[in-house]
Order: sequence, then structure tokens, then C-alpha cells
Amino acid sequence: MNDAEAAPALDEGEVGLVDHHDFVCQEPFTFEEGGQLPGFTLRYETYGKLNAARDNAIFIFHALSGDHHCAGVYSLQDPKPGWWNNMIGPGKPIDTSKYFVVGSNCLGGCQGSTGPSSLNPETGKRYGLSFPQVSIRDMVRAQRRLLDHLGIEKLHCVIGGSMGGMQALQWAIEYPERVNSVIAMATTSRQRAQSIAFNEVGRSAIVQDPGWHEGDYEPGKGPNVGLAVARMMAHITYLSDEGLERKFGRERKRVREAAPATGGFFDVEFEVESYLRYQGKSFVNRFDANTYLYFTKALDRFDLGQGGPLEDVLQKMQARALVVGFTSDWLFPPEQNRDIVHAMLRCGKNASYAEVNMDLGHDSFLIKAPELYELVSGFLSADEGHHHPHRH
Amino acid sequence: MNDAEAAPALDEGEVGLVDHHDFVCQEPFTFEEGGQLPGFTLRYETYGKLNAARDNAIFIFHALSGDHHCAGVYSLQDPKPGWWNNMIGPGKPIDTSKYFVVGSNCLGGCQGSTGPSSLNPETGKRYGLSFPQVSIRDMVRAQRRLLDHLGIEKLHCVIGGSMGGMQALQWAIEYPERVNSVIAMATTSRQRAQSIAFNEVGRSAIVQDPGWHEGDYEPGKGPNVGLAVARMMAHITYLSDEGLERKFGRERKRVREAAPATGGFFDVEFEVESYLRYQGKSFVNRFDANTYLYFTKALDRFDLGQGGPLEDVLQKMQARALVVGFTSDWLFPPEQNRDIVHAMLRCGKNASYAEVNMDLGHDSFLIKAPELYELVSGFLSADEGHHHPHRH
Repeated sequence: MNDAEAAPALDEGEVGLVDHHDFVCQEPFTFEEGGQLPGFTLRYETYGKLNAARDNAIFIFHALSGDHHCAGVYSLQDPKPGWWNNMIGPGKPIDTSKYFVVGSNCLGGCQGSTGPSSLNPETGKRYGLSFPQVSIRDMVRAQRRLLDHLGIEKLHCVIGGSMGGMQALQWAIEYPERVNSVIAMATTSRQRAQSIAFNEVGRSAIVQDPGWHEGDYEPGKGPNVGLAVARMMAHITYLSDEGLERKFGRERKRVREAAPATGGFFDVEFEVESYLRYQGKSFVNRFDANTYLYFTKALDRFDLGQGGPLEDVLQKMQARALVVGFTSDWLFPPEQNRDIVHAMLRCGKNASYAEVNMDLGHDSFLIKAPELYELVSGFLSADEGHHHPHRH
Repeated sequence: MNDAEAAPALDEGEVGLVDHHDFVCQEPFTFEEGGQLPGFTLRYETYGKLNAARDNAIFIFHALSGDHHCAGVYSLQDPKPGWWNNMIGPGKPIDTSKYFVVGSNCLGGCQGSTGPSSLNPETGKRYGLSFPQVSIRDMVRAQRRLLDHLGIEKLHCVIGGSMGGMQALQWAIEYPERVNSVIAMATTSRQRAQSIAFNEVGRSAIVQDPGWHEGDYEPGKGPNVGLAVARMMAHITYLSDEGLERKFGRERKRVREAAPATGGFFDVEFEVESYLRYQGKSFVNRFDANTYLYFTKALDRFDLGQGGPLEDVLQKMQARALVVGFTSDWLFPPEQNRDIVHAMLRCGKNASYAEVNMDLGHDSFLIKAPELYELVSGFLSADEGHHHPHRH
């Protein structure tokens, strides 16, 4: 439902043409749950310029199915800009004329960073399930090495939604002295049972797909059916009853599409079915099933308080914090976002909770939303001492 | 989450030992969407006694995965009474010492009634996808023949939750002169996009399972993986975030179960995963995948107003109506239940909406709930002119 449109790539107000970079780390990396890599690659992009003081950097973290391509386009023909192009750019809420923005892909990913689908240099074969179990904390620790590589001592802000919000919060606790401020959206401090349950359904669909082979498959020949089913289901949890009803309702397709291997009765009948099938199919073409398994596990195991009271870990935090919940988000509902801020406030931290009234569900944070834009731009410029809210 | 316990089968307050009956209809049946059967069988059970005036009968309709076994046990060893045993029995809200209760399995079902897994007498082979497309209205029309067979002219009440609620409402409109009152719970007058979307994910998992074979499979050798995945997902939608969190939270299993075909990382780790896997497995052993496809389609196509304003069809209704919504039901939320009553009221009908505050989600209607019990018993006895609410 990310409705960012492909504005002319070279418009003044756009990030424009971008390219990705690969950070190749040659030092061994030990994972939280055990296991080691001799080194790893993180794919990332940057927008805007790092200033002389090197203190205007903003780190962006992506959600489960996102990537490092946050803004801009790869060519003038590229129809689809980065996933947060509406948020990032010159004069946009995350203003690339003021800030140096870094979008990093996650360790364990499948879009250029080292993950289960990468070749193990020691065997020459794909890691598959031999890839170590990755946690949100591991993602953050790997990103910290990228930050060192970029020669950035302190980040102006770390920002993310959903799984990206977990990383942002983890950053503020893991490296308190290196984070000036944090914005987390549509997220949680600990995965609850219902979210674990949905992820487990997706994983069951994948690992029981004959194409999975214990994670040992060739790209494109993997558990495509299981992954598509997992994505179709997950996609519903990113939206809302209201949003789906307004967009599709009970509208029928004029020409019915044949369902995979079925007679007429189970062909696509409703528009929403066609939309979901498309989401499933297109996901299979851009995402790796093993990474999906690893990332959903990282989500399920995420507990910022590590089993203890949230306050115990939040004490370490030095950053100012803004946590944003969206009224129609039922995956990580407003309360779960608000509760994070309440815990921060109980620790005497500089933290604010904002609730944005949008009816598009969890994915609301990806969508054009002036209310959200003003919160973000205002919060980012707050400690510059001069805040100019947009005028209407 | 149906927590009805197996009370000693012969307790005074229990329905006790029951057996099912088969109504074999020899007349051809034409389906709403076309297609015919030379005849059909409906499996049903009855509790209590039909009075001389034959006016104390209550028809119970089951939900998607339910059946005709509403109450009682099949033997003294039977550990699990019928699905609504807590609601039906002597002195219970649906009081079998006063009412003659009929629980009927649905046309298209897989528990004794004629459905896709039944043998087609003309070919000697299972119907499979050659079974006509069944609608909620077809289910009701078939039940009407059972009613005639039982020699009951007018029903004291028709009662159902979820898909059963759809049937109850359809009954009141299809045969207004034969329904004295209707109770519908946790239901809707028309399936919305989000519910269609969830059903489509389940159907995709089933029809893409190599075991489905276009619906042509032997019992037990069908799309068991797809059906289990569909059930696991659907089961989440019957519960609630609150309920799951209270029951499971982030509790880990002491001994981890091996996931179907996976290495350690994807074994069952959280209690909620184990619970869901069990739900999927046990469902496969008791339910037919084709019936699941047919019934979810019937749900998705259900629109009481048939594309027009609900009021147009509700005009026909003669029955008193009670519609009950449950606060934590997000599959058929309270508003969708309330809206049915508002439409009835706009038509000048005798209708009431009740909202029961329970946090167990859609399945709340199956669970012990004194508040619900009083509403049901009160409504059923209302036109006897003497209503004795329970005292506390």
C-alpha cells in the first residue's frame, strides 16, 4: 500500500538518481545466539551530504520485507522510487539538504547483504540453514561497523518503522553514546503472541513446501508457493479492515483469473483476491524464503527488555525519543507504541508518544501523511533550536 | 478455545447420551448458482422433546468448522461433548427441558451430510469439484426440507454464531412465516474484504498443495499441509490479541518440537506455535479440504441484502431478533452485528442488539459466558410472558 509515486526523478524536491554501495567487513562477526561469520557485506545507500562536523547523519532501518533502497530512483526509466521516497528528499520531512541519510540493508537479508542465500566462502555453497541465527541486536551490531566505516561517531537520529523501529530502539540502548535521537514507528518493545502466531503460520507454509528442502534450494526454485502464501497472509496484517473495505469492498473482477491449478469455482472472483495473489507472486520474485524465515524469527524473539522490565535497559538510553503509533495498526497497535514511551518517561527520559489517526493499518507509516511529516521534521529540527512547522 | 468441559455425561443438568440421525431427502435439489443433486442427506441431532403443539423447536446452525453435534456425548467414555454443550441442556440457556433442539449439519459438509467428499450415486465416485457451488441460502433451503420431514411448521427460534448466524438470518428472510424468533451472534450481513482476503489465503494454501489434485483425492491423502496452514491462520482470526497474550504470551516450550521437516532454528519454540500446530493437525483429521473450500466460498459470497440495501430483504422478516456482538471479535466486529439490528429497526422490526464484553475474540460465543446465557434464555422465554432472569 506504499503509495509513493514516481515523481520525475530529477525534480528539485527529489533525491533523484541513486546507487547502492557495499560495505565489506573483513572482521569476524559473532552472533548473539552463537555462530560466526568470517566477515560480511552490508548493502547501503546514502542521500544528502555528510557535513564537516560529521554530525548530521540519519540512519534508516527497513521493515521485514524492505531494503536499503529508501529513496530516489536507479534510472530515469525506473518507475518505482525507494520505499520511503515520500519521506526522504530535499525539503522533505527527512531533509536531504540538511541531513546525510544512510539506508542500510540488514544482516541476514537477501538484497545484497550477507544472508542465508549468500555463498559461504569456506564451502563455495549457499549458507542456507547453516547461516547463524540472526537477531535484531545482530543487525544493529553489524550496522555499527558500517557506521564506523563511514567515520560517523554520533548519529543525529536513528529512524525506523515496524522491524526498523525495533532496530532504532535497539540502537539507542546498544550504543547510547552514539545516538542523539530516535524515532520508532508502528513497532513494539516485544513481539506478542498474536504476531508470533501469524509468523509461525507463514513459516509453516514455507518449511512444508516441497521446494524448501531444509533451506537448500537454488534461487527461484525454492518454496515459492509457501512464501507466496506467507506473504499473502502477512500482507493482510499490514493493512486494515477499513482500508481494505474502502479499496476493494466486495467488488468482483470483470474477467476472472484462474486460480493456480483450479476449476472455475476457485478462480479469483473478488478484486481483493486478485490483489493478494499479486502481492504473493511479486514477493516471491524479490525476496528469499530463508531470509523470510530468519527475519520472522528475529521479530518473534525480539524483546527489548530481554525478559526483564523494559525500564532496566531503557536506563542506558541517552537519546531523545519520539515513538509514533497509528490508530488502525492492529499488528503493532498504538498501545504497544505508547507503552514504550511510558516506560521511557518512567526512567526520566526525554520521550514523546504521538498517535497518528490513519485508517490504513500497520503500513500507514509508509504512506503520505502530512501529520506524520510534521512530527518527524519537527522532532529532527527540535534541537537546532529553531523549528519551522509547515504552514497550511 | 471452546472450553466446554466433559461434565459427567449423565448428570442431571446435561443432555447426556446422544446419537445422530440421517435425513435422506430423495427429491432433486437445485442450487442457487446452478447445478443439481438427485437428492441429499443431512446429518442431525435432536435434544429434548417436541411438544404436542409442535411449537417448541429450536434450530441450531453451526459455524464453518462446526457440525451437528451441538451437545451431549456419544458414550460414557466420550471425553468431548458437543460444541455448544455449555449452552444446551436441561436448565441451560437453551433449555432442553422446555425446547426441542435440532442441530443440523450443512449441505456441502463432510460430517455425514452430502458434500464434495460424498460418493456421486451416478458415477460411484466422489463428487470433488463436480459438487455444485453451495451458498448459505442453499444450506437453509436444504434445512427447510429437514424441518418438513420433522413435521415442524413453525420454529420457536433459529440460532447460530458466525456462519451459523448467517444461516439464522437467512432463515428469517427465506421462510419468514416459519420463524418465530432469531438469535444471531458474532456474524455479519455481508462478508467484508478483510474476511474474504483471509479465506483466499487459506484457499490458496489448499489448492496449491500438490495433494489437492483439483479436488480429486482419497480421504486422508488430500492437501493436508495446505488445509493445516489454512486452519492455523483462520484459528488466529477466531481469537484475540488479548486472549492469546494472556494464554501464551512469550512462553517458551520446555522441550522443543521438531517442525515438519526442519532443523533446530525453526522447531516449535513458543507455546503459541505448538498450540497452533496442534490446531492445524487435528483439523486435518476431522475436516475435508474441499468442504473447507466450498464453505469459505459460501461465506465470501454471503450478502444478506443480495447487493441491494439490507432493508429491502429485512422487510420480509416476521421474527423477533436478537443479534449479539462480542467486544473483542475482530473477524465480525461488534459494529457489523449492531448494523444488522439498526437496519431491522429502520424497518420497524422487533430487534435488539446486545454487546457482550469478552476478550476471547470471535470464538467468545462458544465459551462459558453468564452474560450471554442470560441474554439467550431471557430472549427465548420472553414471549412466554414470564421471564425469570437468573439471580446473583
